[in-house]
Amino acid sequence: MRATPATGRTSGGGPAFVALGGGHGLSASLSALRLMSDRITAVVTVADDGGSSGRLRDELGVLPPGDLRMALAALCDDSDWGRTWRDVLQHRFSSAGDLDRHAVGNLLIVALWELLGDPVGGLDWVGRLLGARGRVLPMADVPLSIEADVRREDGSVVVVRGQTSVAQTADLIEQVRLVPADPPACAEAVAAIDAADWVVLGPGSWYTSVLPHLLVPELRAALGRTSAKTIVTLNLEPEEHGETAGMRAEDHLEVLHAHAPDLSIHAVVADPGAVEDIETLADWCHARGARLLLRQVSRGDGSAQHDPLRLAAAFRDVVESTWGDVGRRRP
Amino acid sequence: MRATPATGRTSGGGPAFVALGGGHGLSASLSALRLMSDRITAVVTVADDGGSSGRLRDELGVLPPGDLRMALAALCDDSDWGRTWRDVLQHRFSSAGDLDRHAVGNLLIVALWELLGDPVGGLDWVGRLLGARGRVLPMADVPLSIEADVRREDGSVVVVRGQTSVAQTADLIEQVRLVPADPPACAEAVAAIDAADWVVLGPGSWYTSVLPHLLVPELRAALGRTSAKTIVTLNLEPEEHGETAGMRAEDHLEVLHAHAPDLSIHAVVADPGAVEDIETLADWCHARGARLLLRQVSRGDGSAQHDPLRLAAAFRDVVESTWGDVGRRRP
Repeated sequence: MRATPATGRTSGGGPAFVALGGGHGLSASLSALRLMSDRITAVVTVADDGGSSGRLRDELGVLPPGDLRMALAALCDDSDWGRTWRDVLQHRFSSAGDLDRHAVGNLLIVALWELLGDPVGGLDWVGRLLGARGRVLPMADVPLSIEADVRREDGSVVVVRGQTSVAQTADLIEQVRLVPADPPACAEAVAAIDAADWVVLGPGSWYTSVLPHLLVPELRAALGRTSAKTIVTLNLEPEEHGETAGMRAEDHLEVLHAHAPDLSIHAVVADPGAVEDIETLADWCHARGARLLLRQVSRGDGSAQHDPLRLAAAFRDVVESTWGDVGRRRP
Repeated sequence: MRATPATGRTSGGGPAFVALGGGHGLSASLSALRLMSDRITAVVTVADDGGSSGRLRDELGVLPPGDLRMALAALCDDSDWGRTWRDVLQHRFSSAGDLDRHAVGNLLIVALWELLGDPVGGLDWVGRLLGARGRVLPMADVPLSIEADVRREDGSVVVVRGQTSVAQTADLIEQVRLVPADPPACAEAVAAIDAADWVVLGPGSWYTSVLPHLLVPELRAALGRTSAKTIVTLNLEPEEHGETAGMRAEDHLEVLHAHAPDLSIHAVVADPGAVEDIETLADWCHARGARLLLRQVSRGDGSAQHDPLRLAAAFRDVVESTWGDVGRRRP
């Protein structure tokens, strides 16, 4: 092959990270992790039913590509080439017609899937195009739906169906399920978790981007048995509306624990400005044997967005303090 | 820039060719020329108003990308990388919904145009993606329409508007016009013609893919003044229906001459199986000072498609017999 950009690299320097999530939260994790390692695997939710992804899923019967596209974009090579193709993939058409709001990268990913008949192979080709610093995988081989039992103010429990609807519900979520309940996990994702040094969960929409991975039986089993240590990054501000309104920091962690009791949390990264009651959070972490890192990881511009460098520094602190057990990380 | 495929190469080996046309005819020329040279520029019609291109033009107000996409595909690098991205660009969605029949490459080209605000720059990026053996340019900077005066069987003359309608007309075409009549030519296309060793016209839909270039005043002027020699490749079979039904080989040449009297035709490549009256064609060529090459350039499988190797051999014969004037072509 002539003049081929490097394949998605998972065998370069740094520890092997597996980041689980979706949407902007996963992009934040990946933007930080790419500063620390070339051995990154993103495992991405495939339950989106809204926007460009939802339309493609409905029209063509494919996995929703949007969260996969965003993860690939976050890992693009930092060059004119990588940034230009990232911008092309992230570009959305704007019109009064059929293409309005479709993201170009979604269309490209779907075309590769149709052409190759192989979701992972198609994503690897997009990774090569971007010179991606790692690999992006779907969490399951089939499109999923999310549904939730929610308790209304009048005490009744109703079922809310679809990721978009669940993410926007103003009522208390009691239970979240995947449909189908036992989807086939992406085999490469299971293998990546088995081989990882570190697993990173969060930030992101807790019930619809972070938790779904724990609902896939094969992924939950892999997370329970892997020797990788798990870092959980908490969100930067409590939701005023939507799926986690009213939930405190430790409630987010408790939800993970309740759904995956075998998952051992090694460290929790939280921004002190986003924790209502640090003592209670610290107590939860202590009781579960998790180290709590309180760091400013927000951008500090008033937005609820993680700063990639600050988040990378926090991850580095977690990794290096542990890394010493098996040898200091090389500069 | 790291790991960037070679840019579209127009400075490699071989004579400098400029191929003018559109659609499958231009692809046939380019598939042959790429076997002879790395210095190829395709100058492509932008009057298409049908199919995926027509819909994109209507919805987003852009140049119709389809013929440009096909030309880029024909020039792709002959590697796993080049062929895969060619196949992605040529892939068409098939659904009962909005994306049905859209070619992925059309969407990608339009996205680059929207992102860069530069038609030539966007095409160059797609050329880099494909490792294209040359450069693909639009013939004009604005979308064009074609209209024709056609004579009906009852003797009346009516105006037919739009490339698709003109290409399909069963009536005799008397006159073809562009709308607007004096569009701005692509400056890089004019420069390529000025600097060319060889200009290649045809094969293709004569009135809607080959002739339109001669109707752009700046291109016609460049073709009149360039020191490049012009090769015209005739079509493989007379149309039974459509724009050139009833026209003989020499009629095709006469149409070119009538629209661009300053264009000097150096050589005509024709498949003897597709010429009704070889003597008349030879007379026309002799009278205009053009060399006639009668060669089997069809695939020989009954299809009316040019065989790239046979067409390349014919071009080589034209080029080498002349090339001797300024030095034998290096092997």
